[in-house]
Amino acid sequence: MRYLVTGCYGFVGAYLVRHVASVEPDAAIVAIDRRAAPAGFPKVNGSYELDLLDATALAQVIEREQPDRLVHLASFSSVGLSWQQPIESFRNNTNIFLNVLECVRTLSPRTRILSVGSSEEYGLVGPDDAPLRETSPLRPVSPYAVARVAQEQLGDVYVRGFGLDVVATRSFNHVGAGQSPQFVVSAIAKQFAELAKGTRQQLALGTTSVVRDFLDVRDVVTAYHALLARGTRGEVYNICSGRGTSIAEVVAMFAAIAGVTPEVTTDPALVRPVENAIVIGSHAKISDHVGWQPTRTLESSLRAIYDDWYARV
Amino acid sequence: MRYLVTGCYGFVGAYLVRHVASVEPDAAIVAIDRRAAPAGFPKVNGSYELDLLDATALAQVIEREQPDRLVHLASFSSVGLSWQQPIESFRNNTNIFLNVLECVRTLSPRTRILSVGSSEEYGLVGPDDAPLRETSPLRPVSPYAVARVAQEQLGDVYVRGFGLDVVATRSFNHVGAGQSPQFVVSAIAKQFAELAKGTRQQLALGTTSVVRDFLDVRDVVTAYHALLARGTRGEVYNICSGRGTSIAEVVAMFAAIAGVTPEVTTDPALVRPVENAIVIGSHAKISDHVGWQPTRTLESSLRAIYDDWYARV
Repeated sequence: MRYLVTGCYGFVGAYLVRHVASVEPDAAIVAIDRRAAPAGFPKVNGSYELDLLDATALAQVIEREQPDRLVHLASFSSVGLSWQQPIESFRNNTNIFLNVLECVRTLSPRTRILSVGSSEEYGLVGPDDAPLRETSPLRPVSPYAVARVAQEQLGDVYVRGFGLDVVATRSFNHVGAGQSPQFVVSAIAKQFAELAKGTRQQLALGTTSVVRDFLDVRDVVTAYHALLARGTRGEVYNICSGRGTSIAEVVAMFAAIAGVTPEVTTDPALVRPVENAIVIGSHAKISDHVGWQPTRTLESSLRAIYDDWYARV
Repeated sequence: MRYLVTGCYGFVGAYLVRHVASVEPDAAIVAIDRRAAPAGFPKVNGSYELDLLDATALAQVIEREQPDRLVHLASFSSVGLSWQQPIESFRNNTNIFLNVLECVRTLSPRTRILSVGSSEEYGLVGPDDAPLRETSPLRPVSPYAVARVAQEQLGDVYVRGFGLDVVATRSFNHVGAGQSPQFVVSAIAKQFAELAKGTRQQLALGTTSVVRDFLDVRDVVTAYHALLARGTRGEVYNICSGRGTSIAEVVAMFAAIAGVTPEVTTDPALVRPVENAIVIGSHAKISDHVGWQPTRTLESSLRAIYDDWYARV
């Protein structure tokens, strides 16, 4: 089995490569990324440094590699930054995926594509809408969310109109060691590590009342692999834990892990123009179709993230 | 009142300029288009030749002009061609509109924007879904349709998140003299004019069973003007006749107008990978909010289109 992984050298890519290597030792994994492999990245079988906005360069890779499976991890994945750089966010979500689709359609139409999307696609949801199912309406409220909806819909058009083999996800917040501190849980963990070491005095937070469905990145990549192996063409799957946790609860869990009671301040830069109050998903569909289940507790995930930051700050 | 009209030198722009000039003689109308004004285009008060993908050039125009109203007509508007050029279609619908939004947000945030969208956004609809209302679900089935949904959703994000003043439309098929023959009614009219003159022997058609809601372009532009004047910020409005007509019926009407009974052939290039059977809209919302009503019969529209082609072929 030959894998091509876009955005491979990001947070999720490292976990995905390790998982695929462990369960399919004979698989070849080829990376595409805008940057070179970071230090310590697990071994891959080939690597292309290119920008997916460059459709010509991408076409050469697709034509040459003819992957069995293409895992599209590349993304401008910060919701918060998408409010500051809407054009870049849109290009580096939707336009890059359309380039992937066109290259696969014209040069390697048998490739199975995993289109990674986001729970942000659901957008405006009320407390009564939880847990979100794949049939719930999409009402995106950020530039990032609109870009992800368009990505998913383009995938659907290529399945129905061009016969491509695309499986899509709506991945809820994932957490794990190594995630950028531009994401909320990683940002809080980093601050707690600094508080524990005495290099920081206050914990700066955005809106702490929001409830999110956090899933360990190790569970995320087993879900992606299961969907590539057994997911249904043209379908979209929630990837989530099924549990809701508020940011305030995450803070309390980190406080217990770190043994620190922080003084809290609100950072206006972390408060977004529009934000969903509660986002909790149902993973009934993926559990039913491919037998996937989340296996890690949030407590164990947060401990791993904290330990990683504590060793680094 | 100062108008900036993108894609001004296209089919709809000519009618819009004439309408605005007739009802608001003191209005200033400034055109933006990728090309120069075609021969015979009505007089405008200023003109910029630029590609809306060039955000830097666009920003200079928005900053200088500070329009009261921006009418965004620019579009890669062919559904059929979007299957052949999905990347170009997406860029020249969604990306150009995002550039418009960003320039207005940063340089002229009081400008009211009319975001012209399409009935294609509704996508897959069954006979029981007619007439489509603005609350009907969006299930886009072509690259063009996905691009238009993203455009509309981006407009909504800029209203809610950034406070911009955007009014959106879902415009159904429009027809009128001067429309490109890449659109079905114009293509059929042109062929009938050629059949009547004896320069063509057969009528080449795609799928004739599909039912569409055709609206005269002169009614379209009165709707756009009414929405700019009295539409509600952040709302989307169907622009349609409320009547459904099959392509076969359009052919029969042209046959009567032209006095020709043609031999019909099917052109596979005109058959699309996925196509909606029936698209009929309700204009109850725009009629209720701004008092707009369609005024032309399809018969009178088809006659004008035929006469125009007959004079030209």
